[in-house]
Amino acid sequence: MAGIRDVARIAGVSPSTVSRVMNGTANVDDEKRRRVLAAIKETGFKPNELARALFKKSSKIIGVIVPDIENPFFNEFAKAVEEEAYGSGYRILLCNSNNDAEKEVTYIETLDQMNADGLIMATQNDSMTNELKVGMPIVAIDRKMTNGAEIACIESNHYKGGRLAAECLIKAGCKKIINVRGPQILTSAQMRFKGYQDVCEEYGIKQYVLDSSYSYESGFEVGKKILETYPDADGIIASNDMVAISIYKVLHHAGKKAPKNFQIIGFDDIRFSRLMTPELTSIRQPITEMGKLAAQIISRYQQHQDFQRENIFDVSLVERKTTKKLKTGK
Amino acid sequence: MAGIRDVARIAGVSPSTVSRVMNGTANVDDEKRRRVLAAIKETGFKPNELARALFKKSSKIIGVIVPDIENPFFNEFAKAVEEEAYGSGYRILLCNSNNDAEKEVTYIETLDQMNADGLIMATQNDSMTNELKVGMPIVAIDRKMTNGAEIACIESNHYKGGRLAAECLIKAGCKKIINVRGPQILTSAQMRFKGYQDVCEEYGIKQYVLDSSYSYESGFEVGKKILETYPDADGIIASNDMVAISIYKVLHHAGKKAPKNFQIIGFDDIRFSRLMTPELTSIRQPITEMGKLAAQIISRYQQHQDFQRENIFDVSLVERKTTKKLKTGK
Repeated sequence: MAGIRDVARIAGVSPSTVSRVMNGTANVDDEKRRRVLAAIKETGFKPNELARALFKKSSKIIGVIVPDIENPFFNEFAKAVEEEAYGSGYRILLCNSNNDAEKEVTYIETLDQMNADGLIMATQNDSMTNELKVGMPIVAIDRKMTNGAEIACIESNHYKGGRLAAECLIKAGCKKIINVRGPQILTSAQMRFKGYQDVCEEYGIKQYVLDSSYSYESGFEVGKKILETYPDADGIIASNDMVAISIYKVLHHAGKKAPKNFQIIGFDDIRFSRLMTPELTSIRQPITEMGKLAAQIISRYQQHQDFQRENIFDVSLVERKTTKKLKTGK
Repeated sequence: MAGIRDVARIAGVSPSTVSRVMNGTANVDDEKRRRVLAAIKETGFKPNELARALFKKSSKIIGVIVPDIENPFFNEFAKAVEEEAYGSGYRILLCNSNNDAEKEVTYIETLDQMNADGLIMATQNDSMTNELKVGMPIVAIDRKMTNGAEIACIESNHYKGGRLAAECLIKAGCKKIINVRGPQILTSAQMRFKGYQDVCEEYGIKQYVLDSSYSYESGFEVGKKILETYPDADGIIASNDMVAISIYKVLHHAGKKAPKNFQIIGFDDIRFSRLMTPELTSIRQPITEMGKLAAQIISRYQQHQDFQRENIFDVSLVERKTTKKLKTGK
């Protein structure tokens, strides 16, 4: 196998000149550079992966930062990114930020220093996205970055999702619908809530609101709050499927049956919504397609600087067993 | 900030000698090497992360290769690794192999080339673990590598788990117990099956066996097979919780109630076992503790070459709602 000395000999330069061409840190005159590159090609010289990353300023690594890898939305998403990226020769550095802004910054710095080819990121931290300064393209999930650091944003039509959820419960006969909304710092959660509010106004229905985060634990707490505060609630819109599953469990434990005593609808359509009994009605986000597109955007950006900045996926109502069959027509 | 030229000037050597000391690829006489290292220290010279990885032969990265990131066992495990490792200054490169041996090899090569400080790996591929030649320490999950490439192995007491599951169903009154065993290429699945067999022999109970892989899909198929082949089965030991959840669903859909018409027990005690209704009885593996230990082993190896080679975690029966309460005594 050819080494750096072989390249240097053929190019008629010193090994340190080859090294300078490779890491690009010092000036090398154009003629010498050309000879070095030709010699690298001729010898088939393969610097190791790290040296090559210095050389090419590319590591074929895509960073994926998610708030919680245990959240099925994010592991289904990450798996789709990984499968798509792998096919294009990329590896995935998957980082679990636990919504910790400091951890996010540390991971971003690590990725930046290793010349990652791109970053796919879901964050809840405003300050972080405002101050972010990095040299790699960023695909943001469900959030536009206010400093414009991202090259593209992928999101679902959350407003439509909020509308669909509210309309589903109203048409299924619910009179007192509690909206368990997600963190209002997130545009996605805001838009879903707005959809619910608009539908309530259109139908002249009173609004009831509780707050949750996106975790099973949060669902358990909200479930108890519903029993205490709104024991007569007959419809629940949960902030996501994890929260819906926990709320269902609390109400079921208290002797309430779905969809007889209460109807509940989640958001995301994670795999488990189909696996629990009764199967959960949910607003579907096309998680796999979203992950694939995120990987494709980074890959296209690296090849052709050709990508679409705004990518909004359609959502749909998936009726299962926790809501009553919709009457056709109003 | 000090550059490579400052270091060279202070050490009284050429910049390319500094570079040679840093990347360790060519011989530098001991006296010069010493002067270069002293000059690096004196100037506080900070090579960028990639150069430093070459220099230190360490990237502060731990690779984690799992067969399926969507399997809750593995994402709970990976999250625990990540949280523990992060505290010790490591980042996690999480790789999803999809049980594809070629993908595993590619990821291992990538990690090796970037001088990862260690690899934590769960694999089902025999050939891969036999032929593996890497320069980094490996912590194997649930499988000893036949070529001794790993430094340590972490596993649960699967034999005991198999015994506990069988004893639980027998004591709860089951007469016809189907063991839906996992892939017999895996020691873990073999040992669980052995535990079941030994208990059946001790109690003079006939053995019934079906095969499954570790996925929801596999559980659906096996569930149908149980209905067709053993409609009178009153006890089911599933290969893991995902499979148990799917089997439960198929049987429930066919009008069978747990634990009245059939009792079922899973393995792993993933979070969802507690979230589904009825809650799933399971054999608990301490997933978080296992992930933490895996990260600690790599970290200790890098610091002190001090670690324990065999690490067997105890398992326990977690009785929930898919089995009848055990009678105390036999």
